[in-house]
Parts: sequence; structure tokens; C-alpha cells
Amino acid sequence: MNKRLILNIIGDVILIEAAMMLLPLLVGGIYREWSAIYFLMMAAVCGILGGCLCKVPSKRKNMYPKDGFVAVALCWICISLLGALPFTLSGEIPSYVDAVFEMVSGFTTTGSSILTNVEGLSHCMLFWRSLSHWIGGMGVLVFMLALLPTLGGQAIHLLRAESPGPTVDKVVPKMRTSAEILYIIYTAMTLVLVVLYLLGGMPLFDSICIAFGTAGTGGFAVTNDSMMHYSTYIQSVTTVFMILFGVNFSVYFFLLKRKLKLAFRNTELWVYLAVIAISTGVIAVNIRSQMPSWFQSVHHSAFTVGSIITTTGFGTVNFDLWPELSRVILCFLMIMGACAGSTGGGFKVSRVVMLLKFAKNEISRAVHPNAVKIVRMDGKQVSNDVIQNVLVFTVVYIAIVLVSVLLVSLDGYDASTTVTSVLATINNIGPGLGVVGPYGNFASLSVLSKIVLTLDMLIGRLEIFPMVILLTPSTWLKN
Amino acid sequence: MNKRLILNIIGDVILIEAAMMLLPLLVGGIYREWSAIYFLMMAAVCGILGGCLCKVPSKRKNMYPKDGFVAVALCWICISLLGALPFTLSGEIPSYVDAVFEMVSGFTTTGSSILTNVEGLSHCMLFWRSLSHWIGGMGVLVFMLALLPTLGGQAIHLLRAESPGPTVDKVVPKMRTSAEILYIIYTAMTLVLVVLYLLGGMPLFDSICIAFGTAGTGGFAVTNDSMMHYSTYIQSVTTVFMILFGVNFSVYFFLLKRKLKLAFRNTELWVYLAVIAISTGVIAVNIRSQMPSWFQSVHHSAFTVGSIITTTGFGTVNFDLWPELSRVILCFLMIMGACAGSTGGGFKVSRVVMLLKFAKNEISRAVHPNAVKIVRMDGKQVSNDVIQNVLVFTVVYIAIVLVSVLLVSLDGYDASTTVTSVLATINNIGPGLGVVGPYGNFASLSVLSKIVLTLDMLIGRLEIFPMVILLTPSTWLKN
Repeated sequence: MNKRLILNIIGDVILIEAAMMLLPLLVGGIYREWSAIYFLMMAAVCGILGGCLCKVPSKRKNMYPKDGFVAVALCWICISLLGALPFTLSGEIPSYVDAVFEMVSGFTTTGSSILTNVEGLSHCMLFWRSLSHWIGGMGVLVFMLALLPTLGGQAIHLLRAESPGPTVDKVVPKMRTSAEILYIIYTAMTLVLVVLYLLGGMPLFDSICIAFGTAGTGGFAVTNDSMMHYSTYIQSVTTVFMILFGVNFSVYFFLLKRKLKLAFRNTELWVYLAVIAISTGVIAVNIRSQMPSWFQSVHHSAFTVGSIITTTGFGTVNFDLWPELSRVILCFLMIMGACAGSTGGGFKVSRVVMLLKFAKNEISRAVHPNAVKIVRMDGKQVSNDVIQNVLVFTVVYIAIVLVSVLLVSLDGYDASTTVTSVLATINNIGPGLGVVGPYGNFASLSVLSKIVLTLDMLIGRLEIFPMVILLTPSTWLKN
Repeated sequence: MNKRLILNIIGDVILIEAAMMLLPLLVGGIYREWSAIYFLMMAAVCGILGGCLCKVPSKRKNMYPKDGFVAVALCWICISLLGALPFTLSGEIPSYVDAVFEMVSGFTTTGSSILTNVEGLSHCMLFWRSLSHWIGGMGVLVFMLALLPTLGGQAIHLLRAESPGPTVDKVVPKMRTSAEILYIIYTAMTLVLVVLYLLGGMPLFDSICIAFGTAGTGGFAVTNDSMMHYSTYIQSVTTVFMILFGVNFSVYFFLLKRKLKLAFRNTELWVYLAVIAISTGVIAVNIRSQMPSWFQSVHHSAFTVGSIITTTGFGTVNFDLWPELSRVILCFLMIMGACAGSTGGGFKVSRVVMLLKFAKNEISRAVHPNAVKIVRMDGKQVSNDVIQNVLVFTVVYIAIVLVSVLLVSLDGYDASTTVTSVLATINNIGPGLGVVGPYGNFASLSVLSKIVLTLDMLIGRLEIFPMVILLTPSTWLKN
């Protein structure tokens, strides 16, 4: 393993964090909040630490996929551990475990919170919390672009036509251009959203913070009543943008390059939109009796479906009180998640589609043993390596969910709470059902559960393998 | 498809059912119950129907795996539909849907019941209900032996050393001997159990019925309070025998042939016993505060773990009231189930072991890309076909569970009830949690849910593929 190079990468990322901390400092300045001083302090600390790590002499050559995964996992952990310090130092979140939970929830764009009173935080802290969603969302896009394709033959179809080869040297120039285009799309969409919010009469501070939460499909709000606080117009704009940010960014990439055919020959996109349409319809009918009008039914159904499938986690109503059918559908959407190559989390629509196609083929092989069947996505054949990778992902995912449920069950909450707290974190959604429902929070859970769920957020965000590889002893042994 | 041959097979099985119906007739005679007359009637009907089907002229040659699967699925369905008639004709279970549910639950050795008052049934009906478990258990052993190995290279390791080849002609003689030995083991173990029950002062009728339920790992009782009705001695004997009937029968087969090495070089066996020991220990500690003594804690924990992991479903206490940790562990055991090649149901220990080994190998391949890793069971390499088959099984299993949960959720029960009613039936356990818990039953569910769960019992019992193949349109289309 190229440990020095990994230290360099972590150093780079910490330097970026230091720069980002100047933004909440600015916000604190505007609102004249004393607690902003901790961002100045931490920016200095991060600057020095990052600078030192960058200077560790290393050879840029030998980087294996393994090193990349370990580096990514450590980066996410380090920025969370450092980013949580202002909360604890200022005393606004006294427990460091809680602060780390909140920060990991931010950077992984989960949106689960241990806060019982969001409005009690100062503006600079609220801003930092929301900004972490936006940074995390961008980080995920780079991660998907740069590292995932090196594992088992491009498991994730981000920028399919441009997918980078197996060695880093070849990739870097092409990747840098692609990444820049992605950043531009991401930033432009966020800006459009802020403008649309402002047009709806939303305060500037709220507009920026909520736009960060929507863009990163995170879900941190700045008020205790989440999106219920705002008008129907603002809620509708959010619905549309949540769904847009849950789309594979390659669609926008190709649109920008005016390759319409490539943009829309995307199996995942159509399945994603179909699932949203059908779920919204069924839930709207199912909750009609609880709503004053059909419009309200469809509006809240669409918002909640968009919020859950994209794993954002904003709430306009307490969907925990909806009938069991709606709750079950939401649970399924929680697990499925958004499109690969988006800022959304979860198991990913493309994986579900591939698994179902794989199963269908294998069953028809049992009926007609001599028939040759292949799995196709976007009109192209999917290689066996990719399918194998999805199957491994599925097995490890299930194993991690089961172990986590077991550990959280020690707290003795009801089944809904126990199971959905794990699903809501590993799929980077935010709220679950029961105690951790849209009107609840993770505050009352034990320290053990909070640590387990913090790890689940990281595991889910980084598509399982980096964290598993980081925690596998054989990664650290010399061969 | 060789439809005529399939009709012959169904005819054979219905003839066996006709013969079996004479036993409850005998019981009815002893207790002088009028309702026994319906068994005479149905035995005659089955005799004639079975005889006619057997006489359909066919060629014994061309039998493909597909035909075998369709035949097995149809056999199970036909004997359930016919076996349910005495309940409805006698008026003891007035609804035919309910009677079919109860009968499918019997033949699939599930033990889920729609009866609110078991003791209200006449002796001959109770006997028929319990006998169906015993017949079903035996049927499963033959099924595993004869048909499963033809699908994707011996997915189930029953009689590994003796595993039959891909064509039926070669298999029949060897299979017949193996099947006879299995029957002898199964019958002998049941007889020993009856004797042990009688020694404990259990009435003869109860002894036979409960022994049937234990041998088939079914779980139908003859009293409303299930196994709570009997002494600690009888409960302990049941614990041991449930666990014994959940062991892969090849272990007994090799023991009988004095091949001790082969018998005990069985990865699945040791994992199964370890899981039982650990679960019993953890639950015993977890429920200690609800129990009068450590002995009671361990006793009830062991009984419940044995009952759930072997998918028998007997109850000595209402484990639905246990702490969440215990409930979660029981849920996991529900899903895992017993050993392959036993009368127990569920996902099977060997599949879990193979999936975990597969995932472990693939992760270490990500770390060391050039390392060649193979999955080993019982000291032998497992072929890729088998692993592929287990993976398909997993995907289809999850898909069926999700669809079933969605349909059952229309009834609007709580999450525990909805989810565990599906798990309890597809894994052939019997009771779930909540409304369908050990002290509840399936009576209050809607007709739709009962039909869905009836199908789930069949799907689970026949290891998914036969039912899926039966219901796949392409099976019935000419190629």
C-alpha cells in the first residue's frame, strides 16, 4: 500500500475543508455570532494539518484501487471528525459522539439528526451543517467518477461512454475535465434552485441552506418543522429539484454535449421516473382520506416519494401516520434509493434493475437450459463482472444491515424504529419511522447505536466497499 | 413438456393420499366421530381420480428438469386442494380458502393456522392435520433427493457422495435405495419420539400428533396452548428432536453406513449447531428478568430457538413479549432456517454459509486482485454453478418477500405483523410476531392475504423454483 500517497490525498481534502470553513465564519460575521470564532480556529488547524500531510514526500506512481478506497474512506472520516469540532467546542452540541454523528450525517448527505431543537443552533453552525451536504454531494460525484469504475469493471455506469480505464495515469486528464463539467452542472443547478426559492419569498439564508440540502439530497433543514415551514410553491420546487438531483448526472452531461440519444437511452432513468410516478399515484389514493383535497394528497405524496427515493429526507407531513401500505412502499423506496451517479444514496435503481434482469434470465435458463441470455442496460450488454459485483454488493449490504439491526435492537425500541433507523442511515435518507420518524430524531438512541449508525452512513455513502476494505485486516497486512 | 407423464405422477401421489386418508378414518372410528365419513368419501374420490390419472398413456422416457418441477408443484397443490375438502364438507372449517390455507400449511410443514380454537376440531380432523405434516416432511426429503440436484448442479447437498447425475434413468435405481433408507430413518426417529412422549405420560393421541408435527418440523398442536400444555420433560424431548430433524439427513445416512468422517465433515452441521448454541445463550440472558429462574430461561430459550430455526413453530411461551434483541434474533433465525436436506424450511444454513464465503472471497479479491479464491464446503470446492444458483435464489427470494409484504400490507396491520406473516409462511415456520404471533393466528387476515401467504408457503417449501417455473408463462409456451 502506498501510505504516503494516501496521506497526501487526505491532506489535500483537509485543505479544502479549511477553505470551506471560511464560509460559516463569514456567515457568523454577518450575524455577529461569537461561536464563529471556532471556525476560524479550526480553519487554521485544518490548514496547518492539511499542509503538513500534503508535504509528506511520496511517489505519485504506484496507486492501486485498494489505496484509492482506503484513501476515500479515511478522507470522509477525517473531515467528519474535524468538522464536528466546532459544534462541540462551541458547546452547541456538547457530546462529541453526537457532533460526529451530525457531521457524518452531513458529509454523507444523510440528514439524520440528533438535534431535538434545530432552531437552537446559531446561524453559522446551521450554515456549516447544510454546507456539509453540498460538499458531500460534490465529493460523491467525484468519487463515483474516479474510483468506483476501478472495482470489478465499472459497477456504476457514470459517464458510461467516457468511463476511465484501469490505471490512474491515463485517467487523470480526462477525469479532470469530466469532473469540472460535473461541478459546473451541480453548481448551476444549485444556483437556479436558490433563485427559484428567493422568487417564492424564502429568506436568503434559508434559500441557500435548503438548496444545499436539496442538491446534496441531504435533508438538513434550518427549522424544526422541516419543509412544512414553507409555502406549497417552495415545496413543489423542492419536489422537482430533489427528483432532478436523484438522476444520473451523465444524463445532464450528455444533454450539455447535445448527445440527446445517449442521454435518454438510459434504462435506469426511465425505471426511476416510472417508480416515482407509480408510487406517487398509489400513495396519493391511499392517503386521500387523511388529506383535505386531492391536490394535497398528490402534492404531499409526490414530495414524500421524491424525498425518500432520492434519499433526501425532507418532510412536509408526518408520513409515519400514513396507512401501512404507504409506509411499506416508502420503506421499499428507502431501500432502492436514487440513480447511480447522482448525489442520492441507497441501493440504487440500476442495481435493482440488473438484479431483476439477472434473476429473470436465470429462471428462463432453468426452463430452457440451452438458451443463451444476457443482461442488457441502456441497450448494451452488461458484463458478468458487473453482475458479479452487484451480487457481492447485495450480499454484503444485507449482512451489514442484519448486523446493524442486531446491535441497534439492544436499545429495545420497537421493530419499525430499529429496522428503519438502520435503513435510513445506510441508505443516507435521514428520517425513518417510529422514534426516528420525520417528526422524531436520533437523540434518544444509545451511544453504541449512534456509532453503529454513523458507520452505516459512511458504509452506505461510499458504496460499501471502501469502508469494508478499510476495516479488513488483510488490507493492512503485508503480502 | 411431457404433460402425460406429469399427470401420471400426480395420479400416483393422489393414490398415496387416498391411502393416507384411511388413517384419520380409523381414528374417527375409534373415537366414534361422524365426521370421519368424509375421509371415506374423499379416499374413494382420490382413489378413482388418482387411478384414472395413472392410467393416462405416456412414455416414461423424456423427462426434463422443467417437467419435474412442474410435477412437484402441481402435486403439492393437488393434494392440498383435495386434502382440504374434509374440513369444509364436515363444516369444521367452513371457508374453503381457510381450509386450503390450513392444509397447505400442513403439507408444507409450516404450521400457520387460521383456527382460533384448535380444540374445537374432532379427533380425526386433528389427526389428519398433523399427519399432513408428517407426509409433507417425507415428501420434501424425496423432493430434495430426486429433483433439486437437476437444477444448476446440485444446489442442495443432500447425499453429497451419492448425488445423482443429470438424467432420470440413471438416477432411479440408486435414488430408490437412498429414498428407502431415508424413509426408514425418518420413521424410526418418529417412533422413538412417540415412545419418549409416552414414557413422559403424554396421551397416545397427543404423542402421535405432536411427533408428526416435530418430525415434519411443522408445528400444528392439538391444544390451544400448543406445547405449554405439557411437562418440562416433554418440552425438552421436543427441543432435542426438533433440532435433530433440522439436521441434514445425509448425516444420519452416513452414520448408518458407519462413515463417521463423511457424516461429521459437514460445514453446515457445525454452523447450525453453533448458531443454536449462541442464540440460545444470548436470548437466555436477555429474557432472564422475565423468567423465574436461570433454568427456565435456558429451557424456554432453547425450545424457542430450536422451534424457530428448524421452522417448526411450537411455542412454550409468548416470545412476542420478549425484548427487542431476542425478537430480532428470532427474526434472523426465521429467515435462515434449518439445514438443507432436512424437513426444516427457510433459506437454509448452507446457503447463508455459501453467500458469506462468496462475499468474503470477493472482498479479498478487491484487495488482492490477483489472488485466486474458491468457496469450500465440507472440505470440497463448490462449483460456480452452485454459487450462481444460490445467488439467483437469494434475489428471487427477496423479490417474492417484498411483493408479498406489499400485498399483505393492504390489510393495514402493523409492520411486525405484516413482515413476519410473510416470513413465517415463506420460511414454513408457522407463527410470526404481532397478530400472527405464537398466541395469535392468521384467522383475521383478508382473503387476499391468505391466498398470498398460501402461495408463499408453497413457494418456500419447494425452494422457490418449482412454483416460479410453474407460474412462468414461457413454461407453457411451445418453443
